[in-house]
Amino acid sequence: METSKVKFLERTLMGPGPSNIDPRVNAAMTRPIMGHLDPEFLKLMDENMILLRKVFKTENPLTFPISATGSGGMEAALANIIEPGDRVVILVNGVFGERMADIAKRYGAEVKVLEIEWGKVFSPDEVKNFISKHAPIKMVGIVHAETSTGALQPLEEISYIVHNYNSLFLVDTVTSLGGTEVNLDQWGIDITYSGTQKCLSCPPGLAPVSFNEKAVEAVNNRKNPIISWYFDVSMLRKYWETGERFYHHTAPITMNYALWEALKIVEEEGLEARFERHSKLSNLLQNALEALGLKLLVEKNYRAPMLTSVLIPEDISDLDIRGKLLTQYSIEIGGGLRNLKGKIWRIGLMGYTCQKKNIALLISALGQCLNDSGFKADINAALSVLNGE
Amino acid sequence: METSKVKFLERTLMGPGPSNIDPRVNAAMTRPIMGHLDPEFLKLMDENMILLRKVFKTENPLTFPISATGSGGMEAALANIIEPGDRVVILVNGVFGERMADIAKRYGAEVKVLEIEWGKVFSPDEVKNFISKHAPIKMVGIVHAETSTGALQPLEEISYIVHNYNSLFLVDTVTSLGGTEVNLDQWGIDITYSGTQKCLSCPPGLAPVSFNEKAVEAVNNRKNPIISWYFDVSMLRKYWETGERFYHHTAPITMNYALWEALKIVEEEGLEARFERHSKLSNLLQNALEALGLKLLVEKNYRAPMLTSVLIPEDISDLDIRGKLLTQYSIEIGGGLRNLKGKIWRIGLMGYTCQKKNIALLISALGQCLNDSGFKADINAALSVLNGE
Repeated sequence: METSKVKFLERTLMGPGPSNIDPRVNAAMTRPIMGHLDPEFLKLMDENMILLRKVFKTENPLTFPISATGSGGMEAALANIIEPGDRVVILVNGVFGERMADIAKRYGAEVKVLEIEWGKVFSPDEVKNFISKHAPIKMVGIVHAETSTGALQPLEEISYIVHNYNSLFLVDTVTSLGGTEVNLDQWGIDITYSGTQKCLSCPPGLAPVSFNEKAVEAVNNRKNPIISWYFDVSMLRKYWETGERFYHHTAPITMNYALWEALKIVEEEGLEARFERHSKLSNLLQNALEALGLKLLVEKNYRAPMLTSVLIPEDISDLDIRGKLLTQYSIEIGGGLRNLKGKIWRIGLMGYTCQKKNIALLISALGQCLNDSGFKADINAALSVLNGE
Repeated sequence: METSKVKFLERTLMGPGPSNIDPRVNAAMTRPIMGHLDPEFLKLMDENMILLRKVFKTENPLTFPISATGSGGMEAALANIIEPGDRVVILVNGVFGERMADIAKRYGAEVKVLEIEWGKVFSPDEVKNFISKHAPIKMVGIVHAETSTGALQPLEEISYIVHNYNSLFLVDTVTSLGGTEVNLDQWGIDITYSGTQKCLSCPPGLAPVSFNEKAVEAVNNRKNPIISWYFDVSMLRKYWETGERFYHHTAPITMNYALWEALKIVEEEGLEARFERHSKLSNLLQNALEALGLKLLVEKNYRAPMLTSVLIPEDISDLDIRGKLLTQYSIEIGGGLRNLKGKIWRIGLMGYTCQKKNIALLISALGQCLNDSGFKADINAALSVLNGE
């Protein structure tokens, strides 16, 4: 097989991530590489920690990017908290809750899974009932914005319940961070992990994490050493947090430049303005999709503003439509995963991708592709929703 | 603390890595981001696998970059092979051998460590004696170019011994790959991991690995599931190798672009020409350092061509000299680690950094800094070594 056949195509990335990135972030990656112990790079690490704390709305000193993608962040969070034999509860309403349960089992936890229909969110009562049946529990894990369904889970009441049972509260904020309110300190989230390639609009490759004092205490009080060396925060914090700058591994330099620039952009826009943009434009997208004649998976009150799941109409081919969007319009949207495969499309409006022009493009292109397949999409009605705004 | 204080300085990176990168690699990272399941990105993944096989000199289908830095590659290699209770031998002559032993223990191995003086290499006889004492052994691990000392370990005879005892042979090629011969198939290396930020001259962030048929068989025959989810090659190969393209995690897109371009550059130069360049220029560097009046840590026959360890002369301050090189000449060199801290400097000539002009700059700058500190460095003699070539 010959190489050199790759075309680097400009895509409108409206799937579940990665999202498009600001040209400033692109440019940031071309800055000259410094060493991972260079005083200027250490300053940049400090600034990334400061900027991440603002986005997470936390004072947690231990807030930094793990040198891996979002799922590496998930493993880092679980691997540091869980010891063999610990009983934990994982709340599953999609693929990423399932993955959490899988990883927790691998690290030796006794995992109690409460699973509900994918696309739904958990009510405080069902969580309370489940926890009370299994208490005492070391940790309860849940996904904020479930990337496989686009459901946004309210967290405050559940956090209250979890802490009443004296458990640690771990939340997956991979898809939500930077696109909707994530308030670690006010909501009492003890451990979280995220990714860079969703609403932060930075390329994939880093996983911001944050551990509060209680979580750090749990790490410090472990009876067994952490199995994973790469994800061991008791060592990582000596490089990132404590000022010792003790060499652990060579940090991905350019990825940290990209994250720095992406976080500056978030800061300049302002968090609340950014949330408002995601909220307003996702409403527009959802209204336009419904005006096309499509139905959405998630109930209105629980839709994540950065990711909308659309039910694929009967007699319409998932792959055919997604293929046409990609080859004819260079638009990427996501398919369904696992039991939602072939049943939904996942349409992302994340960070830099979250622009009105992208909604207009998607609606026109999707409407046209659907009509070519015999579905009667009302493109006029859908576009007039956009014009009304 | 305010942010925005970072200066992105142009450094001549002559430490143990990261190295400087070719402007083409810098440009490659600015290509538009595609999704991790985009057909064009899948082609790029295929090409990265093909190009990596060429650099590793192997036909192993399971040859791909782990989405983490070199130490993540080390963990991936060990985590997949080792099951709790397995007896393994780790040969330690520096920090990275020690790290291998640490990780192997974390994953439950019974680790037998043969440690020799740092800066030396292992003789086949001492390895044979040690293995015979502890056989049967599942795996023997060794470092090819020990980044903490600059010693280059001959591997062929040791590989023969290891296989006579029916063990798997795992080799760390983080620093050697792309700078000197690494021949997986001919040398019988069963598992290896590397990094991108050394002689491949790509930013840090990926860890190329390769598992041969015997290694894959060991993974397939495990009695216990692999503990790490992120590094589980039984799942990763469904995304990378088998053509299923089964989603595992979101690959770091831009890092894979960078690796692709870096591997193209290696291919265009030609592996043998690249090895010759590293060999010739490192000889020049070593001769020039000796002409300055400095002594080298590693015996002549076992010096890694991409990394030279210099003994710090008596009464000379490690930090003072390295600080001056950085602030006055924007040159990074490395200090010693652990028991070599304050005793050696590590001077890298890796990939794109391996140019005669960089040697001239380093020799002039280091000579001048040493003379300022009262050491009588013979700069004239050292530079005439360079001019003689």
